[in-house]
Amino acid sequence: MKINKKYYRTIRDNGKKRVSVFAIDQNSLPFRFSIIELKSTGDIYKAIREMTVRGAPLLGVAAAYGIYFACTEAAGKSYKGKDFSDYVYEKYKYILSARPTSVNPEWAMKKSLGEVAKGRDTREKISRALNTARRIADEDVRNCIRIGRAGSKIISDIYRNNRKRPVNILTHCNAGWLACIDYGTALSPVYISAERKIPVHVWVEETRPRNQGARLTAFELMQNGIPHTIITDNAGGLVIQKGMVDAVFTGADRITSKGDVCNKIGTYKTALAAHDNGVPFYVCAPLSSIDFTIKDGLEDIKIEERDADEVRYARDGRKKIELCSPGSPIKNYGFDITPSRLVTGIITENGLIKAEAGEIRKFRSGK
Amino acid sequence: MKINKKYYRTIRDNGKKRVSVFAIDQNSLPFRFSIIELKSTGDIYKAIREMTVRGAPLLGVAAAYGIYFACTEAAGKSYKGKDFSDYVYEKYKYILSARPTSVNPEWAMKKSLGEVAKGRDTREKISRALNTARRIADEDVRNCIRIGRAGSKIISDIYRNNRKRPVNILTHCNAGWLACIDYGTALSPVYISAERKIPVHVWVEETRPRNQGARLTAFELMQNGIPHTIITDNAGGLVIQKGMVDAVFTGADRITSKGDVCNKIGTYKTALAAHDNGVPFYVCAPLSSIDFTIKDGLEDIKIEERDADEVRYARDGRKKIELCSPGSPIKNYGFDITPSRLVTGIITENGLIKAEAGEIRKFRSGK
Repeated sequence: MKINKKYYRTIRDNGKKRVSVFAIDQNSLPFRFSIIELKSTGDIYKAIREMTVRGAPLLGVAAAYGIYFACTEAAGKSYKGKDFSDYVYEKYKYILSARPTSVNPEWAMKKSLGEVAKGRDTREKISRALNTARRIADEDVRNCIRIGRAGSKIISDIYRNNRKRPVNILTHCNAGWLACIDYGTALSPVYISAERKIPVHVWVEETRPRNQGARLTAFELMQNGIPHTIITDNAGGLVIQKGMVDAVFTGADRITSKGDVCNKIGTYKTALAAHDNGVPFYVCAPLSSIDFTIKDGLEDIKIEERDADEVRYARDGRKKIELCSPGSPIKNYGFDITPSRLVTGIITENGLIKAEAGEIRKFRSGK
Repeated sequence: MKINKKYYRTIRDNGKKRVSVFAIDQNSLPFRFSIIELKSTGDIYKAIREMTVRGAPLLGVAAAYGIYFACTEAAGKSYKGKDFSDYVYEKYKYILSARPTSVNPEWAMKKSLGEVAKGRDTREKISRALNTARRIADEDVRNCIRIGRAGSKIISDIYRNNRKRPVNILTHCNAGWLACIDYGTALSPVYISAERKIPVHVWVEETRPRNQGARLTAFELMQNGIPHTIITDNAGGLVIQKGMVDAVFTGADRITSKGDVCNKIGTYKTALAAHDNGVPFYVCAPLSSIDFTIKDGLEDIKIEERDADEVRYARDGRKKIELCSPGSPIKNYGFDITPSRLVTGIITENGLIKAEAGEIRKFRSGK
């Protein structure tokens, strides 16, 4: 998608002999647009941990580049055989620890490790790791476009049923192209609909504590000419109950085998409001977000606890403002679970599927 | 309740011949504790509008002092008869316009106007207005203590059923003593329980955009020694679904004749989360919060839209930090409606009543 009328992907490598990875610094958006260079497993870990890169699919690609760097680092130390594998596996676990709740880094890195294992020598292992990262990125773009087409069909149906008044979509957090490589998951249906000249307006929940909605979703919608309005997370319930929302679209960090959705904290409350008012609630995610090893979201997913300072302070470069009463304890949970019963459907690269164990199981072999 | 170990009410007058009203400046809390002096209808309007005083019952008392000032101002202009009444009525409408969603200023000022009308001369009118404001304040304290006793019974039942592990209460916004004159509505059951040595821990939703939860509720709980934890509004759903909440207590700005509750934006989403998990959701409010002229909250209550800058910026004295993508439109709705079907009960000065038209009607004559 575009920033300042120029086309970008969120992450790419420079294709040179000594490969560097370039990513949009999402912590400085929307106030400053800059690209950072990543050159080691340490850089990848830091970028994931500090959310310079964020969003499930982008995390997967970044982590896959991490395995590539692990291979080049092992080669630099002249590790061979088991030593090489041990080093790479150690870095796999290290990168995994940067954002434990998201399934995509694990999925992408395991895919890469499988390819690396097939390499007959160090050089081939390195080349396979690099190609895997690139392939996952390209595949993600294709998947996002497919998700967008499937979701756009839903939007165009609403548009027709509404006698052609603009369609109101509500979204939480940022599952736009900034969370992916291009197009996005939850916002791809919006972008594809806009390409098809269907008028869409997006209600953007700000998404405390990091405000990815107000900062990133609003930014990318603005840059790509989509009408939108920022509201507090609290106000999402009101606009839904007042009939000002036709459908909710969100992303997912992890989907269980029975269709429970682990996503940014607050998604559950928004899903409840949609359900209570008969507004459809769609989760847009590639099939790679499904974790077949877990069934019940509430019991089986460990919820990431993040630094309390994200809640306590608003930050802006050097300035910070205290938002809370000094000395009061704070807990900062990163995700919640939206039970499958609240999910109208999961929009994947293979189209709309029901959030039910039977439906989801069909896609298991595809992984 | 206490601040720095000293006892305060949120508002009081100095009892002198030339009466001044003193109120805790709630905009500078929790970082600075200061008392402001109010001496005119203009001061009262400004204090209500800028939320120096806030919270339904406190707004009622402040507005009643407004009628007192209207009377003294009319007397100063030597208005008599119809001119006097016209001036006072004009100021009544002026003060009403400062926070149109709250029912308490209207209720309190109408009560005062009724008393003023009975006064045979200007001097008696003024004295009746002053006494009405004082009486409403004293009555509010008595009501809050009664609400606290009724709510504390619920907490002590939970405590026994939980085999004496601490009771977890979740609250939204600030309906503590800072919103009232003393004790509070939603927090009064917590304070009374603490006086009765029942261990209570309070989950405090920060309550965007003005953070009254993180700033005021956390502050007053801290000052009065109640264990508590601040969370984002988004995280309220998670702690409820994880079984970490025994009951939700909130206040109300307005309750309809069938028990719909108009309260701070976000209350509806929290009520949905409580309902979805079988956690009781109690609304604590004096009977004066019931507006018998309206029935359906969603259809009949006009939702206050506040300045978008409350959402766009975090402020701290001179500093401000932009939280949103520059240039994106923002809507800042102040309240939402929690339908009566989500309300387990309304805790009033007359005890627990069901959020049902039949139950509520019984209290109509009491107004």
